[in-house]
Amino acid sequence: MAKGLFITLEGGEGVGKSTQLRLLQAALLSRGLDVVITREPGGSPGAEDLRQVLLFGKNPLSWRAEILTHFAARYDHVDQVINPALDAGKIVICDRFTDSTLAYQGYGRADGRPDVLRLINTLQKELGRDPDMTFLLEAPRDVARLRLAARGAPTDRYEQSDEAFHARMLHGFATLAEQHPHRIRRIVAHGASPEEVNSVIVKDICAHLQLG
Amino acid sequence: MAKGLFITLEGGEGVGKSTQLRLLQAALLSRGLDVVITREPGGSPGAEDLRQVLLFGKNPLSWRAEILTHFAARYDHVDQVINPALDAGKIVICDRFTDSTLAYQGYGRADGRPDVLRLINTLQKELGRDPDMTFLLEAPRDVARLRLAARGAPTDRYEQSDEAFHARMLHGFATLAEQHPHRIRRIVAHGASPEEVNSVIVKDICAHLQLG
Repeated sequence: MAKGLFITLEGGEGVGKSTQLRLLQAALLSRGLDVVITREPGGSPGAEDLRQVLLFGKNPLSWRAEILTHFAARYDHVDQVINPALDAGKIVICDRFTDSTLAYQGYGRADGRPDVLRLINTLQKELGRDPDMTFLLEAPRDVARLRLAARGAPTDRYEQSDEAFHARMLHGFATLAEQHPHRIRRIVAHGASPEEVNSVIVKDICAHLQLG
Repeated sequence: MAKGLFITLEGGEGVGKSTQLRLLQAALLSRGLDVVITREPGGSPGAEDLRQVLLFGKNPLSWRAEILTHFAARYDHVDQVINPALDAGKIVICDRFTDSTLAYQGYGRADGRPDVLRLINTLQKELGRDPDMTFLLEAPRDVARLRLAARGAPTDRYEQSDEAFHARMLHGFATLAEQHPHRIRRIVAHGASPEEVNSVIVKDICAHLQLG
């Protein structure tokens, strides 16, 4: 059976993730590789239904139920989109995955509470699908905030007052990178052009695929 | 801290579960006990949102995602309704709980496939809330079908053609009762009046509570 490659892009907002996703897709397609681009939460029709409950439901879920719902969407996405593409030998690039659940819900909101991290890790282990490679895009928070402002994303009161949340979340991503040094590549996404950043990522993937 | 009592009613359709729920509530209230009646799937506002996706979503979820969504609703129901009531010392009576997920999804649909049962049991263990007592109402399938017909429930082609599903589901309930003899009481719900069945259940609960 053919075996694809499962790549995830992670990081906070405003680090240039969407730009890198686009450049990466183009670079791999130009090498004749079969690439599927997807994103979370959502990515399959059923998961998009659950995304509506998560993002627009009027009745707040308990923190445990919220994590279960994120994973219900993720299980559907993996079962109906990601695994079939990998089984067909394709390269799947996913914008956010379980590392984001750990960083945002586990470290950002719950401040690394052991029971929260344990629930997320149990559900991930049960899922049985880990990324082969994860690129964690990092930029200083000041740079990210300037980027968000430049693209017109709201820098509202919540955004401005919630620096403590962002600090915990970014610390969470850094902690995950330390725990999984072989899977997670930290990419410095500032001080270089998007094309330069892209070439670092593409080179890494080609090395993994043993392409010239 | 006060400690309540968590009772679940289980069984296939048409065995008189709703009638017993009503009689049980009245009997316990008449003894001055503080009783909360609830049901699954649903039972809390957020869980009802998820129930909509489960019952009326146009996009079928993968079997794993469907089980995760059932448990997302269950976690919210436990966190926001059941546990607070138990912590306040109340008696909670729930119409269906995890035994139904095992019997319907695990045994009925998946014919007892080990990976399906394992996923359900893992999520239940993580939930950390088991019923103290479960009453499993049982009646011969012919009797249940007559009851369903009498109340005008549809006995459509699916209902008629799906006797194999019902047989597997009822076998699942019986298997669970064998695995948990101290928790699950099998109640023969035919050949006796509803009031006689109710008195058996009430006597059992009062013995558990050491009430006269």
